[in-house]
Amino acid sequence: MISIGERINGMFTDVKNAIKNKDATVVQELAKQQTEAGATYLDINVGTEAADQLDAMKWLVEVTQEAVKTPIAIDSQKLDVIKAGLEVVKNEVMINSAQGDPETLDTYMQLAKQHNAALICLTMNKEGIPQDVDNRVAIAMTIVEKATEHGMDMDKIFIDPILLTVNVDQKQPAYMLEVFSQIKLLSDPPPHITVGLSNFSQGTKEKSLLNRTFLTMAIAAGMDTALMDVLDTDLMDAAICSEMILNKQIYSDSFLKAARQ
Amino acid sequence: MISIGERINGMFTDVKNAIKNKDATVVQELAKQQTEAGATYLDINVGTEAADQLDAMKWLVEVTQEAVKTPIAIDSQKLDVIKAGLEVVKNEVMINSAQGDPETLDTYMQLAKQHNAALICLTMNKEGIPQDVDNRVAIAMTIVEKATEHGMDMDKIFIDPILLTVNVDQKQPAYMLEVFSQIKLLSDPPPHITVGLSNFSQGTKEKSLLNRTFLTMAIAAGMDTALMDVLDTDLMDAAICSEMILNKQIYSDSFLKAARQ
Repeated sequence: MISIGERINGMFTDVKNAIKNKDATVVQELAKQQTEAGATYLDINVGTEAADQLDAMKWLVEVTQEAVKTPIAIDSQKLDVIKAGLEVVKNEVMINSAQGDPETLDTYMQLAKQHNAALICLTMNKEGIPQDVDNRVAIAMTIVEKATEHGMDMDKIFIDPILLTVNVDQKQPAYMLEVFSQIKLLSDPPPHITVGLSNFSQGTKEKSLLNRTFLTMAIAAGMDTALMDVLDTDLMDAAICSEMILNKQIYSDSFLKAARQ
Repeated sequence: MISIGERINGMFTDVKNAIKNKDATVVQELAKQQTEAGATYLDINVGTEAADQLDAMKWLVEVTQEAVKTPIAIDSQKLDVIKAGLEVVKNEVMINSAQGDPETLDTYMQLAKQHNAALICLTMNKEGIPQDVDNRVAIAMTIVEKATEHGMDMDKIFIDPILLTVNVDQKQPAYMLEVFSQIKLLSDPPPHITVGLSNFSQGTKEKSLLNRTFLTMAIAAGMDTALMDVLDTDLMDAAICSEMILNKQIYSDSFLKAARQ
């Protein structure tokens, strides 16, 4: 699967302090560890406390790409912070994320095309996050239509139906699985489907078990990428094993090792 | 989920020797351990090497029910061995298993009704085990029709679409998930769906990971019971977590403990 390593994020104390003290080592160590663990992309998010978010984003992108060549996902809710990151990024890149309003999609898709970037699009709009299956799928279809209109390669589109924390509303996980299946069914070629996986277990006591159990179900339902804790070995094992079971990797006794090479 | 503990089986050396030496302690210890681990049923299978299979089955059932009150699943391919077990069983009971030929189903369903037993029915017939989705579902529908004809409570019918080892044919796991979904979709009220889970990882090097990953996908696709290694804590955790995620158990921080009580 396409895994997006979540650790270079100013919401984590070590990264927050690294931004404050311009301590590149902490960030570069996380970049190397996540790359070794198999991350396809490294997400970079400055968090909420950086004095100058544009400056912080540029610095994080720069020190990260000094350490590794892994593609970067520039993660911010603010367009100017994303643009700041795009200014300095050298390798393949992803934009994380655009909301699903038609005008917002126009802006972000133009930007993505300009930088040949992949783009995560959330199934939410000005009215908020739909809590049901139909409205999430409807926004997903708007995203697919907009991507076609902009002549974007569907392989660059990552739809994120927004995974809520399991204890908020226990009907939601099953709805999400249904949303994944419907998006795959309704679009040809299909876009990627992604979620912010750690959000599922936020504040709970069985984070790793919850994350890998949902991930396994989600992969079977058609999700093929996630922003996730790639340093959680059990989680990565579950992802690799799920894809092997679904015949996306050939079985060998050392299939876990093979997938990591 | 309804878990059927697999360990009292003469294919395991400790049980084979216990049968030979009439050593009740070994069997009773396995009965207690599996019951404590949360087994809904304890499968009892004499294996292939017992000198007198009828005698061995009676003895295993008797010593098991001296130790625990957990319902027993009498497991044999031979009708007379099953009948021997049924003669001495005292509590709730399951018959494991009948093949899916109409005449065989008539015999086993009459027997099951007589003993108020649950019945595992395999989606195979005289022509063998179908390797595709459609023929497995067709036999499943024969089973459902026969159950209706015999006036059996659908809650007593467990359809087993026969899970093959993952490395035999990697298209099979996805087919199985599709079979589970279709059986649930096509029958109302639906029967239970079960598999012999350990068969999935037979001879492989990542047994527990393979078993729990497939189990998680299978539960999401509608499987609600399995013959399995209930002493594998990670596997049982995955089963409990899967059902909680699908809203069959209320979330609490101690949901694993709650499910085991």
